[in-house]
Parts: sequence; structure tokens; C-alpha cells
Amino acid sequence: MLILLTNDDGILAPGIHALRQAFEPLAEVILVAPDRERSATGHGITMHKPLRVEQYTFGRSQGYAVSGTPADCVKLALEQLLPKQPDLVISGINRGANLGTDILYSGTVSGALEAIINGIPAMAVSLDVRHKGNYEVAAEFATKMASFLTQHPLPKNTLMNINVPDLDKHDIKGIKVAKLGLRRYIDCVEERKDPRGKSYYWLSGKLLDELEPETDVWAVSQGYIALTPVHYDLTNHHILPSLQGLANLNW
Amino acid sequence: MLILLTNDDGILAPGIHALRQAFEPLAEVILVAPDRERSATGHGITMHKPLRVEQYTFGRSQGYAVSGTPADCVKLALEQLLPKQPDLVISGINRGANLGTDILYSGTVSGALEAIINGIPAMAVSLDVRHKGNYEVAAEFATKMASFLTQHPLPKNTLMNINVPDLDKHDIKGIKVAKLGLRRYIDCVEERKDPRGKSYYWLSGKLLDELEPETDVWAVSQGYIALTPVHYDLTNHHILPSLQGLANLNW
Repeated sequence: MLILLTNDDGILAPGIHALRQAFEPLAEVILVAPDRERSATGHGITMHKPLRVEQYTFGRSQGYAVSGTPADCVKLALEQLLPKQPDLVISGINRGANLGTDILYSGTVSGALEAIINGIPAMAVSLDVRHKGNYEVAAEFATKMASFLTQHPLPKNTLMNINVPDLDKHDIKGIKVAKLGLRRYIDCVEERKDPRGKSYYWLSGKLLDELEPETDVWAVSQGYIALTPVHYDLTNHHILPSLQGLANLNW
Repeated sequence: MLILLTNDDGILAPGIHALRQAFEPLAEVILVAPDRERSATGHGITMHKPLRVEQYTFGRSQGYAVSGTPADCVKLALEQLLPKQPDLVISGINRGANLGTDILYSGTVSGALEAIINGIPAMAVSLDVRHKGNYEVAAEFATKMASFLTQHPLPKNTLMNINVPDLDKHDIKGIKVAKLGLRRYIDCVEERKDPRGKSYYWLSGKLLDELEPETDVWAVSQGYIALTPVHYDLTNHHILPSLQGLANLNW
């Protein structure tokens, strides 16, 4: 079994090495990850400049540091760097949760999305880092999920998005299979003046979670691991039939 | 009525100015767009450096050039730059189609997604540029869609993704309301050697459309305008019930 690991925190981040150490006894592991942090890159790909790749060894695994985004890494891995198609792509463990609408901004989730677009099973793993960063707990859970998904594959167009609260294993309340929630931010922009008196702006923002029950946002806030099946189809199928009259729009 | 225009081709691109000229007789128009091309940025946001903004006048409209992505532009516009909340956000007209799974990479669509996440109605407009670039045709259609959506609003979580074939108006076959198709690419990576003999890689790729009928990809290929309601919920609701047993996973 060949497992491809990627992330958006960069190839030296602790999360990807917690995964590497957890999976090395179980499978062949190859890391293809950004050479530095690429958080909040969304599903960006690098079209306007070429990519560079440097090869390293980590533990018993090969690693490739790529001057691009997580989606770049997966494209490059599948087509150029891996000796064969991987059986599973795992993106993470992200430093911080990837919940609700925030996954649209998530490089971690986009690495896993790129995998399923190319027909490779995938999961994204994120740790809601608050305290010490229990990456080992999340990595152990990831091995169990990988084993489950090998026996019970998801549909081809779907990945598993996993968010783990930052708790010791015995303090985790359980597992919730949950839909994505809505995350809104307020006060998103902070204006400052540079030494020449000219304005510049930082994106920031306070999270304003509505904590609708049965969402991933709610589950993690309550100390549960949240599992959400995520697909790449953004069509609002629910309203598609009601819009068919638009085919006759006069313009 | 206040309309916010954004795009990912940059504030000097022809598509956004075709929209500006089409909407200036109908509404107050403000442009907030990247200061240069930001294609394929996905839903990236700029967290690790501050944003700069320069103000210009285009025709009778104010424009702000932002050193960031389309999602940055919409965040900044809503919270900092606009005198009041806009009634509609239009992202485009993109130089090139934004169809099927490709919308995950699309800065244009992500500008519109950022709007609906913040509760503002939005549409994304893209032209499948092949020949001369009939931006005026797409802009005229956008005004009709804006008027339609004002009278028949979409659900709060949904934007309209519009793709127009690059044809004269009388050569367009009609309008199809269509789901997103799947776009796959082959030969995505091109390896080259630099003058020092070291490899570098360009992302490229030949499109391998399956042209499943009733998809947006198919509709535009046949000369139709494709309209797709797009929401921000990537949950695969269809399989959610079948996964509930995972709540009892032993680990």
C-alpha cells in the first residue's frame, strides 16, 4: 500500500510527520508537500511560474518539497514524482481546524480534493490546535480511518474531512458524522498606517460561529471528532429544477 | 442600486470594463479588483502579508486596485471600501470559461462565493474566449440576469455561475440551466531543464472532457449559455446517513 502525504503547513510542519510516523509501520509513505507554509491558498494552482522540487529523506520515507500549493503538490506527485498511483492521499495534519465554509479557503482540504478529482481516495485531517497540539492522537485516529476506508470505500467523488479536537484521547467525547456548518467572521479587516502615513490592511476577523447542532463546527466545539464526507460538486441540485424556466429568458 | 464588480484577471482586464460599461446606465458601480492577474488562485485569501489599495476612476465609476486575491477584494470591499452594502456582486467577465470541477480553481467564482458567504447576492460571469472575445455579449446577458435575479432571488447560500460561449449574440443557440460537469486534465506536468541542468516543472495539461449531457461543460461546447446555481456547501449530503455507523468506530 502506497500512501501520499501532503499538507499546507509545509513539509517541516509537525502534523505531516505525525502522520508519517503513524503510517510508516503500515504502508509505504511518500511526502510531497509545499516547501513552506501555504495556508489559506484555497484550491490555488501555480500557472504563471514553474515549480521547483527538492528531495529529502525523513525517517524511512522519501519527501519532496515543492515551491507550490497543496494542489500543485498532488498534481506533481501523481504525474511525476510517485513510482505508481497511491492507494490513498492524506492531507494534514493541519495546524488548526478546517470546518464549515472555511474549507473553501483550506489548502489542506484542497490537496485532498485534487486527489479525488484524479480518482484517488483521500482524506483531510485537521487538529483544532488550542493547547499543546496532540498530533499523535489525530494521527492514530487517521490510521483507523484509513483502515476503515480501505474496507468501506467512499464514492469516487468524495473525501473524508476529519477534524480532531486538541484533547488527550481519553478526553475526546466520541465521533460525530456531521455536515459542514457556516463560519462567518466579523471585523475582518484591520487598517494600519505605514511609517509614511499610507494605509495598509490586514485580514483578521473574529469568528462568529452560530453552532447549529449536527454541524462539524458544533461537534468539534463539544469535544467530538467530526467526520464529514466532502465532494467536489458545488451545484445546488436542490434548486436546479425550479430554475429550468430560465432557459426561456428573453434577452 | 449599488453593484460591486470584481474579477481575477486584474482591474485593467477587458471583461470587468465590459461589465462596468453595461451596468453604469443602470446602477452605481464600484470596482474592487486585484491589481494584476490572479487566475487560478482558488478561494485563496492573504493572511501572511498586508494588502495595499490604490484608488482610480474608470468612466463614471470608482475603482480600487488591491494587492490580493478576488476573495480578499470582496472582504475588503464589504468591510472597508464601499459606502454601503452592495445589492449585488458580479465577478468577471473572466477571460476563459469556469466550468465543472474547474470552478474549484477559479478566482472569479471565489469572488462571488465570498459575497454569498457574507449574505450578498452574487453571480460569476465567464466568457469561453476562443475567437475575438465577445465581452459585450456576455455583459449584455449579465444585465438581463441581474434584473431577473433582483425579481427572483436565489437562496442566500447560492450564486449564479454564468458561462457564455464566444459567439455573436445571434449565433448563441440558447440558454441551458445545467449542473457542473467533471473536467479532467491529462499530461498535467511538463518537465524542463534550466541552464544549469536542473529540473523544473510547468503545470499544463490537455483537457479531457467527457461531455456528459446536461452539464455546463456540454452546454457551452454546444454553443449554449450555461447557468449553474452554485452553493458553498461541499457536504455530500447524499451519503451522510449511510455513514452514521462511523460514530461507533472503535479506535
